[in-house]
Amino acid sequence: MPYVNIKVTKENLTPEAKARLIKGATDLLVNVLGKNPNTTMVIIEEVDTDNWGIAGETVTVRRRRGA
Amino acid sequence: MPYVNIKVTKENLTPEAKARLIKGATDLLVNVLGKNPNTTMVIIEEVDTDNWGIAGETVTVRRRRGA
Amino acid sequence: MPYVNIKVTKENLTPEAKARLIKGATDLLVNVLGKNPNTTMVIIEEVDTDNWGIAGETVTVRRRRGA
Amino acid sequence: MPYVNIKVTKENLTPEAKARLIKGATDLLVNVLGKNPNTTMVIIEEVDTDNWGIAGETVTVRRRRGA
Amino acid sequence: MPYVNIKVTKENLTPEAKARLIKGATDLLVNVLGKNPNTTMVIIEEVDTDNWGIAGETVTVRRRRGA
Amino acid sequence: MPYVNIKVTKENLTPEAKARLIKGATDLLVNVLGKNPNTTMVIIEEVDTDNWGIAGETVTVRRRRGA
Repeated sequence: MPYVNIKVTKENLTPEAKARLIKGATDLLVNVLGKNPNTTMVIIEEVDTDNWGIAGETVTVRRRRGA
Repeated sequence: MPYVNIKVTKENLTPEAKARLIKGATDLLVNVLGKNPNTTMVIIEEVDTDNWGIAGETVTVRRRRGA
Repeated sequence: MPYVNIKVTKENLTPEAKARLIKGATDLLVNVLGKNPNTTMVIIEEVDTDNWGIAGETVTVRRRRGA
Repeated sequence: MPYVNIKVTKENLTPEAKARLIKGATDLLVNVLGKNPNTTMVIIEEVDTDNWGIAGETVTVRRRRGA
Repeated sequence: MPYVNIKVTKENLTPEAKARLIKGATDLLVNVLGKNPNTTMVIIEEVDTDNWGIAGETVTVRRRRGA
Repeated sequence: MPYVNIKVTKENLTPEAKARLIKGATDLLVNVLGKNPNTTMVIIEEVDTDNWGIAGETVTVRRRRGA
């Protein structure tokens, strides 16, 4: 019954990459905690680089600077 | 003062359906816990079927298979 | 497949009240959007009144003031 | 290492306003709790006014009414 | 820079199991998306079985029934 | 009407520190976006250091190592 929420910056994630994240997170809960995969939910949220901040700056600004 | 977050797959929700979800969730908190509706917040998030996984698969793949 | 997260202040919620919130939120998704209840997940989080703020104040302080 | 999630209605936030929110939230954690800014993450989510409810109504409807 | 939130029912998770979940989720983001592990954050939330619902019932009630 | 969620490691936050975080986050939304403080909600979640991971390790382990 676990619920996993993955937030990443929005940068051309393919459907295949999303499918791998979902499969991998589900397997992790099955392997580590013995959870039932059928009720394991995974939601991926893609966040614009203007809307994500680290170290007090947006990712957009950090990328522009080469940080 | 409650906060309710509803995540559903993004599939043509009408403004009317969203309004009914918001009214229903607010009424639930008022009826069960006697909360003040004026400070009850409800946020609906619509998630692409590629970004939602259950049983280790994306909803997109499950729908294609007729699961 | 919906996911509902309800946050309320931690104030002696009984198991019965929690069960009613879970039943009511699930019914809402079934009735408004025709969702499958078997894959509808509801999580209730109880938050200490010191950790919840509205109007720039904690709920603890507001209650003490009778606000 | 703090994580801050800010949800606001989607209403023409400029990149500059987003950058100020991120800087301000990071400074707050540094100033109040002495947290390390380099591992402080801030994510801004913009929510459609149809998807945000308060007092049992969508923000769209409230705005239309002048509430 | 990803952020992963894992919610599971509160049932005697050991520190070792938590560490494995954190390592596994971080590796997943590194392997699938090439993310930097140093800024990958994972938060595990343990939720009381009274506060978790599926199929309109609390997990507490389902467990009691042997569901 | 903004909603702010702040997650920090659980390490003896005083009620005064929490009140300052709530006041500061509310002021930030008022100052940057002109939001109404009366409907600005701030929720602080304190997370056990065993349940928080960065760089693939729990904060508990990192602290022990002096990282």
